[in-house]
Amino acid sequence: MNIGIIGGGSIGLLFAYYLNQNATVTIYTRTAEQAEKINTDGICLKYKEHLQHTYVTAKTLDSWLGQDELTIVTVKQYQLSTVLKKISGASGYGRLLFLQNGMGHIKPLKKIKNNEIYIGSVEHGAYRDSATSVTHNGVGVTRLAVLNGEIAFLKDFISKSPNLFPFTIEENYYEMLIKKLVVNAIINPLTAVLRVRNGELMKNPHYYIILKNMFQELMMILKLDRQDQYFEQVLKVCENTANNRSSMLKDIEHHRETEVDAILGYLLEEAEIKGVQAPLIQTFYHLVKGISLQKGAD
Amino acid sequence: MNIGIIGGGSIGLLFAYYLNQNATVTIYTRTAEQAEKINTDGICLKYKEHLQHTYVTAKTLDSWLGQDELTIVTVKQYQLSTVLKKISGASGYGRLLFLQNGMGHIKPLKKIKNNEIYIGSVEHGAYRDSATSVTHNGVGVTRLAVLNGEIAFLKDFISKSPNLFPFTIEENYYEMLIKKLVVNAIINPLTAVLRVRNGELMKNPHYYIILKNMFQELMMILKLDRQDQYFEQVLKVCENTANNRSSMLKDIEHHRETEVDAILGYLLEEAEIKGVQAPLIQTFYHLVKGISLQKGAD
Repeated sequence: MNIGIIGGGSIGLLFAYYLNQNATVTIYTRTAEQAEKINTDGICLKYKEHLQHTYVTAKTLDSWLGQDELTIVTVKQYQLSTVLKKISGASGYGRLLFLQNGMGHIKPLKKIKNNEIYIGSVEHGAYRDSATSVTHNGVGVTRLAVLNGEIAFLKDFISKSPNLFPFTIEENYYEMLIKKLVVNAIINPLTAVLRVRNGELMKNPHYYIILKNMFQELMMILKLDRQDQYFEQVLKVCENTANNRSSMLKDIEHHRETEVDAILGYLLEEAEIKGVQAPLIQTFYHLVKGISLQKGAD
Repeated sequence: MNIGIIGGGSIGLLFAYYLNQNATVTIYTRTAEQAEKINTDGICLKYKEHLQHTYVTAKTLDSWLGQDELTIVTVKQYQLSTVLKKISGASGYGRLLFLQNGMGHIKPLKKIKNNEIYIGSVEHGAYRDSATSVTHNGVGVTRLAVLNGEIAFLKDFISKSPNLFPFTIEENYYEMLIKKLVVNAIINPLTAVLRVRNGELMKNPHYYIILKNMFQELMMILKLDRQDQYFEQVLKVCENTANNRSSMLKDIEHHRETEVDAILGYLLEEAEIKGVQAPLIQTFYHLVKGISLQKGAD
């Protein structure tokens, strides 16, 4: 199987490394510089002190024609509009899998015609060390669901994927994304504003009160069934990743753009549509945006 | 006039230095160590690169008998209960002037019988450099009002105070304290959580939105007339002290207890009494309390 991967960030490099074991991967990067480096050096994966290499073809996004059997779009949601312009120019060519956080990308994806569209939710931890190197510091699973296409293709794809990089199929893409959104919407902004590791939100009784109040606001907006299960999931992630710095905290620390628009921005839009007050979500949205502005995000 | 000053913090030292020019000051400190140092070295005031000294008598609070014509209580609100126990043991002895921030001290002060009670609001900037030294880095005014006593005494006191350390009389102690509370309740917690100087709250459009929302919540609780004047006052203080770090930010940075209970804690009690929702004030209350707990306030 030929697989195209759009984006040379941590998730792009991680997927390129693993999927190249059982398929032929081409990675499409934003810069020609990164493509050149990958063509020369390959991709290096660091996992528990071990270094492993693989060689893939790298091109810039301009060269993408949609001729691979599957193209996996790994860029952040705030970079997606550029990629979608490119994709719609070549539409009808193939299957697309989108791995963005949040929910904001679903609306534009529904407008893409003539393509099979799949949605993914990544539970791996990874960070990019350089243009060609990624550290896989948290092994998880990648959940896949159909937005517009055949589940048979996903089953076939999973059967050919490497054992050490598991995928599962979820029936409902909305539920799958919402589960991750609830976790991200609470842990990411709180840790980013407070500059603390994830576990601190449960350990500190004052932070825990804010966590619970944020959760209540989310539930007022999303009106989900079985709310206690979602709350337990938030606590479980805090516990399991107690010593981790969240992605949003790391983005803030490294003066990078955060995913706050994809996460809290989406929730604020939903709150407005549903006529629900969301004072905490609004406050944390502006706290994160303000900190980014102050620090001068790239 | 004999004046007693309870508390050897920045405000205690500042008032002791200036008032000793036209009166005889005795300062009452918490520790015997500080009293000894002051008796040996006097009090040093730093103002715009100039150092000035004055000699006052220093004793520990245990020695206070309330025999001065006026005793000025300069301790923070969270230390007040200890001082009030001492005062009520010696009640009936004299006039008391309380300089605490917030509003939480008014209720216990109303219970003190047989004393004339005055309330003050300090607009000076000062920080303590050592047990005997204070820097006067912002010259302002001290506003005085009657809680239970004679305005004639305040007028007499002011007529004898030094020219470079001005006092004014306010008719209404509640309005006087509320004005400062509104400013403190917004600027202090926001700057403490965000770790920014006061001016950043106006400069950063996202922080400014939070500032405005906090103000709206305060107005829902306090139900004040002429709200636009209070809002202008908040902005004026942000502007005039743009390069300053607020007292709460400095308390957080130096791992000291903050005045958040006296300020936001009071507002949360008022909100509950009046049945008003205060999600932002509650959130910033717990953010500040949580940061203090995490940092281990002394």
